[in-house]
Amino acid sequence: MTTSSARLRELLTAPQAARAAGAHDGLTARLVEEAGFDVVWASSFETSASRALPDMSLLTMTDYLQAASWMVQSTSLPVLADCDTGFGNRLNIAYTVRQYEAAGVAGICLEDKVFPKKNSFLAVGQTLEDPAEFAARIRVAKQAQHNPEFVVVARVEALIAGTGMADALARAHQYADAGADAILIHSKSQEPHEIQEFLEQWQRRTPVVVVPTTYFRWKTEEASRAGASLVIYANQGLRAAVQAVRDVLLEIRLTGDSTSSEDVIAPVKEIFRLTDVDTWNALES
Amino acid sequence: MTTSSARLRELLTAPQAARAAGAHDGLTARLVEEAGFDVVWASSFETSASRALPDMSLLTMTDYLQAASWMVQSTSLPVLADCDTGFGNRLNIAYTVRQYEAAGVAGICLEDKVFPKKNSFLAVGQTLEDPAEFAARIRVAKQAQHNPEFVVVARVEALIAGTGMADALARAHQYADAGADAILIHSKSQEPHEIQEFLEQWQRRTPVVVVPTTYFRWKTEEASRAGASLVIYANQGLRAAVQAVRDVLLEIRLTGDSTSSEDVIAPVKEIFRLTDVDTWNALES
Amino acid sequence: MTTSSARLRELLTAPQAARAAGAHDGLTARLVEEAGFDVVWASSFETSASRALPDMSLLTMTDYLQAASWMVQSTSLPVLADCDTGFGNRLNIAYTVRQYEAAGVAGICLEDKVFPKKNSFLAVGQTLEDPAEFAARIRVAKQAQHNPEFVVVARVEALIAGTGMADALARAHQYADAGADAILIHSKSQEPHEIQEFLEQWQRRTPVVVVPTTYFRWKTEEASRAGASLVIYANQGLRAAVQAVRDVLLEIRLTGDSTSSEDVIAPVKEIFRLTDVDTWNALES
Amino acid sequence: MTTSSARLRELLTAPQAARAAGAHDGLTARLVEEAGFDVVWASSFETSASRALPDMSLLTMTDYLQAASWMVQSTSLPVLADCDTGFGNRLNIAYTVRQYEAAGVAGICLEDKVFPKKNSFLAVGQTLEDPAEFAARIRVAKQAQHNPEFVVVARVEALIAGTGMADALARAHQYADAGADAILIHSKSQEPHEIQEFLEQWQRRTPVVVVPTTYFRWKTEEASRAGASLVIYANQGLRAAVQAVRDVLLEIRLTGDSTSSEDVIAPVKEIFRLTDVDTWNALES
Repeated sequence: MTTSSARLRELLTAPQAARAAGAHDGLTARLVEEAGFDVVWASSFETSASRALPDMSLLTMTDYLQAASWMVQSTSLPVLADCDTGFGNRLNIAYTVRQYEAAGVAGICLEDKVFPKKNSFLAVGQTLEDPAEFAARIRVAKQAQHNPEFVVVARVEALIAGTGMADALARAHQYADAGADAILIHSKSQEPHEIQEFLEQWQRRTPVVVVPTTYFRWKTEEASRAGASLVIYANQGLRAAVQAVRDVLLEIRLTGDSTSSEDVIAPVKEIFRLTDVDTWNALES
Repeated sequence: MTTSSARLRELLTAPQAARAAGAHDGLTARLVEEAGFDVVWASSFETSASRALPDMSLLTMTDYLQAASWMVQSTSLPVLADCDTGFGNRLNIAYTVRQYEAAGVAGICLEDKVFPKKNSFLAVGQTLEDPAEFAARIRVAKQAQHNPEFVVVARVEALIAGTGMADALARAHQYADAGADAILIHSKSQEPHEIQEFLEQWQRRTPVVVVPTTYFRWKTEEASRAGASLVIYANQGLRAAVQAVRDVLLEIRLTGDSTSSEDVIAPVKEIFRLTDVDTWNALES
Repeated sequence: MTTSSARLRELLTAPQAARAAGAHDGLTARLVEEAGFDVVWASSFETSASRALPDMSLLTMTDYLQAASWMVQSTSLPVLADCDTGFGNRLNIAYTVRQYEAAGVAGICLEDKVFPKKNSFLAVGQTLEDPAEFAARIRVAKQAQHNPEFVVVARVEALIAGTGMADALARAHQYADAGADAILIHSKSQEPHEIQEFLEQWQRRTPVVVVPTTYFRWKTEEASRAGASLVIYANQGLRAAVQAVRDVLLEIRLTGDSTSSEDVIAPVKEIFRLTDVDTWNALES
Repeated sequence: MTTSSARLRELLTAPQAARAAGAHDGLTARLVEEAGFDVVWASSFETSASRALPDMSLLTMTDYLQAASWMVQSTSLPVLADCDTGFGNRLNIAYTVRQYEAAGVAGICLEDKVFPKKNSFLAVGQTLEDPAEFAARIRVAKQAQHNPEFVVVARVEALIAGTGMADALARAHQYADAGADAILIHSKSQEPHEIQEFLEQWQRRTPVVVVPTTYFRWKTEEASRAGASLVIYANQGLRAAVQAVRDVLLEIRLTGDSTSSEDVIAPVKEIFRLTDVDTWNALES
């Protein structure tokens, strides 16, 4: 555990931005590692979608923790867990920190919206938490952790909720004052301008995490030069899986066999390799 | 519950073969339904792989049950659950039946190998269970069910283990005598010949289930005419997902952004639709 | 499922009050049944205490559901589940109803406090939910249920929060208007007077549930005559267990053996009987 | 984690025997600690009974792990987990070790019976595992652990199965040769004679663990002098709870109120104290 939190800290403070990708189970976490990413993002959006549920705080901390714990067990990368709003009040946040820490998660991300939250890309009103209360929650989170290396990222939703750059920066400063180890600044813009402006004004006071889901043309390298420390590709894996599963299943149903799909799907042997069949078999003798 | 088991029985006894596809969580179950399949196959291979573990009885009944239960909650199709060898002896099988029934699963499939089992496509020795003991287990399973419609499929591994057609047929008859509602005859041949021979000799004594993973050129329609009642496309979905997640993550890492992937992955809005965002939002007002 | 909800309804509308007792796992649910109670109360207080956690919404819906589900599997009595405030907003309540229904729980109880709640006997300020919002939640709960017999009890905390009898009655009427199947009126008084007054003014508009934890001298029979339909002995079982486990463990540690305890603890054979050893053994032959 | 395994090792090698008591959830683990014991025994018998199931390998590793993990989170004592036969073959044992280690359990105990096992006090035939195979499993367990301090106890069931002292000793030596950190020698005799004989002949080659359930007159101090390193009071807590819950519930049902029980059950405030209400409340301000 110490190791994974310490590794996440190293990545957050390195001169070049690190890269995370979203996952929702052990297999996708392992694919993130095999693709060469530095960090697994235990995404609430992916995890709730994997249960066929919207990203609206319907799944509970227990459910998200279980998924994050499977990711920890399946990869050597540090896992940064998306913990939404922290699942309630200060007590829930303290409990959340301890549970995630015990599961070997490297760090968690808490966002400054009101519980229960809705996904930031949904065309619904987003209610921000009072910043003083959220800062108090960050403080409680930091006090609750046993391992001093455990990372708490404060996610600022001001640009999502439309309260403006000044509010975003003011909130970020309050959360940094409260002990946040990094700030995640979220945006639903198609372009990175507001993120760039934030980074410029922030002046690397703490590491900054960015999530180019809508402003996807912005490259990791550009984000790095602009001052971001971690770039999260939060849900492209799940979205790739949905399209591919759908295409192949439809092809099978329409053609009556899987012949035309055999070349575009991983062979059974590849699944064996991914799941360490040889290592496990070797244990027997 | 009654409904889903009854529906599975209808499908198994219809003149045309029904089609199942493998799933490992709520989302993949829903994709199976959207692609027009009739049954969700709660695959042990997929479920263990989703945890980055080999299909070697490492996950427990509790784990597989949880995954199957998520599938039940995410689809209106009947879920047929792959229960490997039944996770132990007769008592474990009785307990398994009751747990799966309570979770709303339509039926389970038990295979005549020794616990702990290994995946049938692994190049390792496969140890068959004594057929009399396995028949007794089928009898226990049938006695344990509360809902008379609950389906118990007996999976014959004789062709996998290489003990020959006569053994496969003898075992199938013993299991049918013991009350099995259907026989799953498994094969790792590249061609459907041995399955065809089995079906011919079996003469529809019970419904027969087939799994064209290796003999994938055999069409649903052909299997149906040959006498199969259910054709399971057991793991193509997962294998499609693995390839697609890998390709997209690699593309992002190598190009530094997700631009080139945006056209081949499902849009975020499509995930919202799949997870019933509108229905859930409507509940609020 | 239908059966247990229908049975709970019968009990709630019978001329004599039914009796429930609190439980927190399969074993305590079975002990409730063996002691002759009519209903198992899946108590949040007991369940959180069994995890060594305070009754402050730290455990999640997932955790409470798991415990309730174990109770359902261990008893033939209907299980009425304490669902605190419903774990969030209207969406969480709809989801909660469906999850509990699917688990075979006969009904749930929702209380009109703000999430996250604290135990009603704690000397802390208790924040009531806006009654119109809570009524809307009851409406959502009733709409969400698939089985028309599923029971939703609305728990009024006005007397706990100190807002008075008029508020308690007004809230109860609003919740009954919204479709609540019964009202639980809670009190922390040492005497039953305020409960008696409530019952008198309520005039059996819906069944009423009472919980004589602090006003423990009031007999089931008196509550029944006063108009209560269900009397819940919510946590005496757990409190008995705590005292007994402590006493016996201390005795063993201090005397250095369990000799003096053997007569006051259940024999191992009694645990075998309680866990149906003979029935399970019989399944094997 | 290191700490709890290291602490367990210290206790096992101390000149005086340490004392463990059985638990099945977070609360009972905490009561074990408050009563002054040194180790929490995560008992399979207690855990299965708490689910109203017999101790016959019906619950799975996942279930037992969950219970053990709750105990770890609720106590500062090292938790030694009863892992029955290891839940399958060598692979299952390797997987079990890693899962328990990750959960912060200090050590596990594996017994040399065939999976699925039945409780040692049941009047049924007990089938011992081949000792060479069991020794190989101990070797696999020791290789699988990541933390060198993690403790693996090998439990010898020869005296339970009736194969005699020579077999018990031969097995114990084989398991010690394979790397077992301690031997648990089990007996269902009413007297400690066979345990005493074992200890005498064993000559402290490794620490020895004893479980005076049937030979309950033998004092901790006597066991210590005879050479035992850990004395487990494996299930007296659960048995005390069963008797007490039953008595109090019956009293309530028969008398119609809990008045006569109030003095023999823990007050609600005591449950608050046990669940750290004040500490949690303090976190909020």
